Amino acid sequence: MGQQDGRVDVDPSMRWNGWGDPAQAKDLPLPVRALLPILLGRVRKPAPAVELAHVQLDRSRLTDDDRAAFDAAVGPENVDDTAEARIRHAGGRSTPDLLRRREHRQSAPDAVVRPAHHDEVHACLEVAVAHGIAVTPFGGGTSVVGSLDPETGVHHAVVSLDLRRLSGLIALDEISGDAVLAAGTTGPEVEALLATHGFELGHFPQSFRYATIGGFAAARSSGQNSAGHGRFDTMVTGIKVATPSGDLELGRSPGSAAGPDLLRVFLGSEGIFGVITEVRVRVHPIPRDRVFESWSFPDFARGAEGLRRVAQQGGGPTVIRLSDEAETAVSLAQVGKIGRALAKGASVVTVYEGDGIAERRERTSAELVAAGGVSSGEGPAEEWLKGRFDGPYLRDSLLDAGVFCETLETATTWSNLQALRAAVESALKGGFAAAGAKSYVMCHVSHIYPTGASLYFTVLAGIRSEPLVVWESVKARVNDAIIASGGTISHHHAVGRDHAPWLAEEIGETGVRILAAIKRELDPTGVLNPGAVIPIERTR
Amino acid sequence: MGQQDGRVDVDPSMRWNGWGDPAQAKDLPLPVRALLPILLGRVRKPAPAVELAHVQLDRSRLTDDDRAAFDAAVGPENVDDTAEARIRHAGGRSTPDLLRRREHRQSAPDAVVRPAHHDEVHACLEVAVAHGIAVTPFGGGTSVVGSLDPETGVHHAVVSLDLRRLSGLIALDEISGDAVLAAGTTGPEVEALLATHGFELGHFPQSFRYATIGGFAAARSSGQNSAGHGRFDTMVTGIKVATPSGDLELGRSPGSAAGPDLLRVFLGSEGIFGVITEVRVRVHPIPRDRVFESWSFPDFARGAEGLRRVAQQGGGPTVIRLSDEAETAVSLAQVGKIGRALAKGASVVTVYEGDGIAERRERTSAELVAAGGVSSGEGPAEEWLKGRFDGPYLRDSLLDAGVFCETLETATTWSNLQALRAAVESALKGGFAAAGAKSYVMCHVSHIYPTGASLYFTVLAGIRSEPLVVWESVKARVNDAIIASGGTISHHHAVGRDHAPWLAEEIGETGVRILAAIKRELDPTGVLNPGAVIPIERTR
Repeated sequence: MGQQDGRVDVDPSMRWNGWGDPAQAKDLPLPVRALLPILLGRVRKPAPAVELAHVQLDRSRLTDDDRAAFDAAVGPENVDDTAEARIRHAGGRSTPDLLRRREHRQSAPDAVVRPAHHDEVHACLEVAVAHGIAVTPFGGGTSVVGSLDPETGVHHAVVSLDLRRLSGLIALDEISGDAVLAAGTTGPEVEALLATHGFELGHFPQSFRYATIGGFAAARSSGQNSAGHGRFDTMVTGIKVATPSGDLELGRSPGSAAGPDLLRVFLGSEGIFGVITEVRVRVHPIPRDRVFESWSFPDFARGAEGLRRVAQQGGGPTVIRLSDEAETAVSLAQVGKIGRALAKGASVVTVYEGDGIAERRERTSAELVAAGGVSSGEGPAEEWLKGRFDGPYLRDSLLDAGVFCETLETATTWSNLQALRAAVESALKGGFAAAGAKSYVMCHVSHIYPTGASLYFTVLAGIRSEPLVVWESVKARVNDAIIASGGTISHHHAVGRDHAPWLAEEIGETGVRILAAIKRELDPTGVLNPGAVIPIERTR
Repeated sequence: MGQQDGRVDVDPSMRWNGWGDPAQAKDLPLPVRALLPILLGRVRKPAPAVELAHVQLDRSRLTDDDRAAFDAAVGPENVDDTAEARIRHAGGRSTPDLLRRREHRQSAPDAVVRPAHHDEVHACLEVAVAHGIAVTPFGGGTSVVGSLDPETGVHHAVVSLDLRRLSGLIALDEISGDAVLAAGTTGPEVEALLATHGFELGHFPQSFRYATIGGFAAARSSGQNSAGHGRFDTMVTGIKVATPSGDLELGRSPGSAAGPDLLRVFLGSEGIFGVITEVRVRVHPIPRDRVFESWSFPDFARGAEGLRRVAQQGGGPTVIRLSDEAETAVSLAQVGKIGRALAKGASVVTVYEGDGIAERRERTSAELVAAGGVSSGEGPAEEWLKGRFDGPYLRDSLLDAGVFCETLETATTWSNLQALRAAVESALKGGFAAAGAKSYVMCHVSHIYPTGASLYFTVLAGIRSEPLVVWESVKARVNDAIIASGGTISHHHAVGRDHAPWLAEEIGETGVRILAAIKRELDPTGVLNPGAVIPIERTR
């Protein structure tokens, strides 16, 4: 990790119609390329994607008055209605988002507005309310659940409120291990800023290189080091929020019984209640040591049993991940070991950082061995770490090759884990089969809790036509299966618009009414991210 | 602990005008009795407390119709408007509550209603709404912040909704370590029920013997083992709530990004949004081993530095507590060592339970030594454990002797801990001095976090007259000082009515508006615990 020695490569602007730095694009490894026809049959290579200059957009619906008001709020140089800016803010990075970016006609926000600090965010919200313009808060642009769709709601236009200029370390309390960061600071920027003081946040979701600290909070992110440092919710000690009808600063104390924890109302609110402008987080000294260990299990079930033992004992590794047989086979295929791979069962990687590694490793190893695990050395875990942010690059190459690829995730108790996994896998395979498509489903566990764990699915499918339509029906089937089988509709990707129709099944009608009541109180005209989390009609 | 071998003494009904089991009443130890005049000057012995049979109450304001409706909801045998039942539900166990219980004229709810399960709770709320009767949810009756005051709000009567009949272990998932408990189950009952399956919850607040699992949730309790098991919020994996306009079941998954965590809206809601009827909690195997170690520090500041190191390293003891010089002196006085005590500085007790004790102890000890601590053996820590639920008994004896005694608590970051402690101590001493009373202030830290810690104050004062009036002014001064010095108005006692006027300073006007909006949505006629957490006029 670059941040360990204070140097971080902040990735350049993201590829407009795919993931990440175009210079880092990853070709499909040859063994995977060879495997695909076996798994998915012959796939059809898609028509070439449209070029940025040829995308057709509707004209910006901002009036001269609208434009002048935003100009006054943030300076005219920070109100951008060029086609490129609008297209770059047209959505997130789900596979449907990327498929839509390949089309000639696209929808986009009417302008991109770039405030520099909290007061300018507040001023933008005042303009939005006064002029009846919807606002889509935009951090790193890495949403995979439709949170960034340019939705006007009942208004005449929508602007993307790009928060990247709210950047920097605002305060660091080294004694308490408490840092205040501007919401638009990206993962690598956060680690670089903290590293100059010897501290680390330790939040490494796959979106790390682009996503922002405000986005982590708004979406209730969880990172790869969650076994050691917890999900992002648990790292947040305070936030500052601008809403259309009053600002908030929450988190006076590391522990409190001063009424309900309102911080938690804004974590996961995805911009529908307000715009998070500052995030205070717990930080720790940069760990000096790091140890890798990989494990093989006869099957996923025994691997899961190992993770359960580790989670319930506590004080284990910083990272622990279990890949099922299908994911293990493909990751080994990537390093050219298909033959061996297919006999390998399930694999686990562990990474230990920080203090007391020897004891933590010894206790963890004892539990994994008791569950049937066999150590397979440092190699696979080290390999995993090197490539841990690269998955989305491979998706671009798969899409280029005509292979549909998407991920989704859920979580449940340990006792329900196998049943939920089977239900989701069956919904995925059955859904694609119903559309005449072969599919290959991989699953891993990457976040563990004493009472349960996450399940993360990657699916490849050979969809012959209308992939957006096919995926919409498959995804609906999967969401129904998750609800029916006791899972959560999202463990760390959030709700956005894609999961919103299922939220009432997760939190009940009364739960949705609570969210709608908060929304009406803070955003009575409904300018903030209309339709995300809760359907627009519920907030009127 | 009784629950470790499956036997638990469930304490009998609590003393109506004091704490706990009358048979367990604790006389003041002679050395303390000798110390009091030195610390506080001569105190005046109060008039004898009124006897239960002589308390004067207004007649119950329930109409025959009201009464018939509650009879229909829970059975007439579970609607009790006898003077004794009403007086026993007249308030909580703060010192002002106990002083009011010593007076001849008292206020009390108009009846006590005892539902047996969720549906009966729901039926009671329907009666309350239809008949315009306020409802005070009542668990163990241990609130110390005025949450149980019989407040009618805008209604013509108020009933105490006693939840003790909602008792029992509803489900236990031994694989996931997840238990569902009826909300009225008390601390000892919970541990006894779990112990028959080999599990422990491990939540031991001082109110443990009487308080209920629903009360722990409603008040965001934190227990003495919080260093090992976290505050109660973090133990809760799900809840079931009855509200006047719809029920909720929350907590589908151990981790989720399905919108804001609404569970957290009900934790700390103190019965103003709904009545918690079931609580799902994380449980763990009963620890086999327990190790005690006590420490001496030259002063509180160095002790706090030791606790900070332990908290930030993680994986430390199950219990850790730091008593300041004043508290150390008095606790040593109780065991007859005044002379030695006053030279002793600050003291720390640690208790280790569960796995990996040797390593955890070694790492913890290294940090405590580095901060200037010297081990003082098992003794004081073991003594602390034996008496850990007995503090409130001593308060009764102090009140009998004419000594005012009350506790309050707050929390802040490590870097602000000394300043906050000084501010609170100064507000306490200054407040009593202004009323012409000598006081003695003790402080301990009993809950640690990576970024900060709690501060718990016990104050003794020789108030000559009108203790309720004097304390109200002192407490206001303390709350102002806490807010001005960056603390939280409550770390684990909750808001109730006593702290409600300060909540807007904690969470802002916008925060109060959010709570009021939720309240209006779920309880539009305002029957639920009017005036707790937020002032009545904010919820209209």
